[in-house]
Amino acid sequence: MSGVAVMGSGSWGTAFALTLCDAGNDVRLWARRIEVCRAVNTEHRNPDYFPDLELPPTLTATDDPQRAMAEADLVVLAVPSQTLRQNLTGWRLPETAVVLSLAKGIELGTGRRMSEVVAEVTGLPDERIAVLTGPNLSHEIAERQPAASVIASTAHETAALVQKICHSPTFRPYTNTDVIGCELGGATKNVIALAVGMAVGLGFGDNATASVITRGLAEISRLGRALGADPHTFSGLAGMGDLVATCSSPLSRNRSFGEELGRGRSVAEIAGSTRQVAEGVKSCTAIRALGSAHGVELPIVEAVVRVIENGEPPGEMVAHLLARAARPERDET
Amino acid sequence: MSGVAVMGSGSWGTAFALTLCDAGNDVRLWARRIEVCRAVNTEHRNPDYFPDLELPPTLTATDDPQRAMAEADLVVLAVPSQTLRQNLTGWRLPETAVVLSLAKGIELGTGRRMSEVVAEVTGLPDERIAVLTGPNLSHEIAERQPAASVIASTAHETAALVQKICHSPTFRPYTNTDVIGCELGGATKNVIALAVGMAVGLGFGDNATASVITRGLAEISRLGRALGADPHTFSGLAGMGDLVATCSSPLSRNRSFGEELGRGRSVAEIAGSTRQVAEGVKSCTAIRALGSAHGVELPIVEAVVRVIENGEPPGEMVAHLLARAARPERDET
Repeated sequence: MSGVAVMGSGSWGTAFALTLCDAGNDVRLWARRIEVCRAVNTEHRNPDYFPDLELPPTLTATDDPQRAMAEADLVVLAVPSQTLRQNLTGWRLPETAVVLSLAKGIELGTGRRMSEVVAEVTGLPDERIAVLTGPNLSHEIAERQPAASVIASTAHETAALVQKICHSPTFRPYTNTDVIGCELGGATKNVIALAVGMAVGLGFGDNATASVITRGLAEISRLGRALGADPHTFSGLAGMGDLVATCSSPLSRNRSFGEELGRGRSVAEIAGSTRQVAEGVKSCTAIRALGSAHGVELPIVEAVVRVIENGEPPGEMVAHLLARAARPERDET
Repeated sequence: MSGVAVMGSGSWGTAFALTLCDAGNDVRLWARRIEVCRAVNTEHRNPDYFPDLELPPTLTATDDPQRAMAEADLVVLAVPSQTLRQNLTGWRLPETAVVLSLAKGIELGTGRRMSEVVAEVTGLPDERIAVLTGPNLSHEIAERQPAASVIASTAHETAALVQKICHSPTFRPYTNTDVIGCELGGATKNVIALAVGMAVGLGFGDNATASVITRGLAEISRLGRALGADPHTFSGLAGMGDLVATCSSPLSRNRSFGEELGRGRSVAEIAGSTRQVAEGVKSCTAIRALGSAHGVELPIVEAVVRVIENGEPPGEMVAHLLARAARPERDET
């Protein structure tokens, strides 16, 4: 048993906090809103996400970040990518804790991966930073559906320590030391899922979406190789696994967001009608910038940015992606 | 325009014949049953598959295989894998035609890929044999949903010729010279889809099935490398693309067959209630034998064989696949 703090009470933070309790830990959840803390502490529920799910009694909540983190061995960061820096700047982390990042995004403006933001703001050495990624749709984790996951840290012992802390009867983490590949896989797959969602919303079938998913993984791998990732990461759970789960599930946030775009709604309309953050909507621009800076062509990411940022019609974008001239397939990958 | 014969009037044969007509060809379809020929010729329908679909007037049918093939430049083989040899043995192919194989299976007993069976029975040189594979669910092709595909031949010119013949406004073929990889990808993915279907039938969610799909592609790639395939093939449409489409679609035959197994029905019950052939049900044993002969571990294929051949309960098989001990992910791929 370890003292664990989960900083953020969104759907993934809540589902992962539950998993950590199932794995035998006492978990303190930091929630910004006092009403959420009260509901967790008195009714064992998170009214914002999974209102019908009974949370374990070993999960308690506080709106005071320092109280949540006090004496924690593991601090789990479960806030959205674009607010991580701001949140971290206001927090004082326990001196010996390991930090585990859950957000799958790239910071706008800086192009930093989440573990880089953590290192920069906190001054923590890389061997105390880990990231969690893989095919982990939060609603299924909350329902205790079996899932495999990946814990990555440049220090294998840190990944193994976190693995031990969060290994529950239904949640099976594997370790990896390729932090770059794991974070790029997790962030970029959200953008590919937006493209797949648009294709679905426009009425395209499984043949077409499977092609976009296949080209999407090739695109993720190209970017990863240019940024120093291990190419093997992308054929595993953190690459293909996460991409396939996110693009297959009608409940995934990024795919759903894309689907609404494909049906003709605007970014503002969709964003206004949901509490959840579709990470790819922000990260697509940062990922395109990473590609440009490293001379990597990212046609799917590029197309998503044109729809999200420039308001181009998704129909043209998807038709363009599917209608590239016939040529030897090797050119694609 | 070329003279094209499609030998076999199952769902994929019919859908591909339609595509060939859309691409500007006059197509003769060989159907075993005279009733099917009559319906195609007089009502432009195939009553067995897609009964509501209007077939083009440039598609005609005959129950005489020699008449179907007379003066054809391209002979498309659209019969199930396990009956290909027997059919071919009774046919006399046109002297200069290119032969294109559609079946995604491995021959029981011999372990031969379909192109090998064609070469063995007809004596045709490899440069006149091609195979078609990729994410091509037949009901979507019949609906003229856009799809990408792969034409493989050891002779690039042959692949390019077939590509030109079947390139329609909605069907976009790419070429590949890795026939081994393309055929193994197409055949093995059916077995992985059976496993994914069982998981779905047992109630597992998208996180778990994404893990099985990911490990499935690793398994296909291991077998392919051992048999001399180009590893790149498996990251493309013929590997990942076909696998993802087949495992995602509730309408795919192999996934559906697996789903029924997962719900507790027996192989005999399911086979008795459908006209369609789930290729993986036969090929799994042949693929396991290929793995054994080449010293390749194929845990998912092995598990599927135990359910199909030995009647082991799918619940145990899927639980076993998902419950492997936590370990560094690299071991998996």
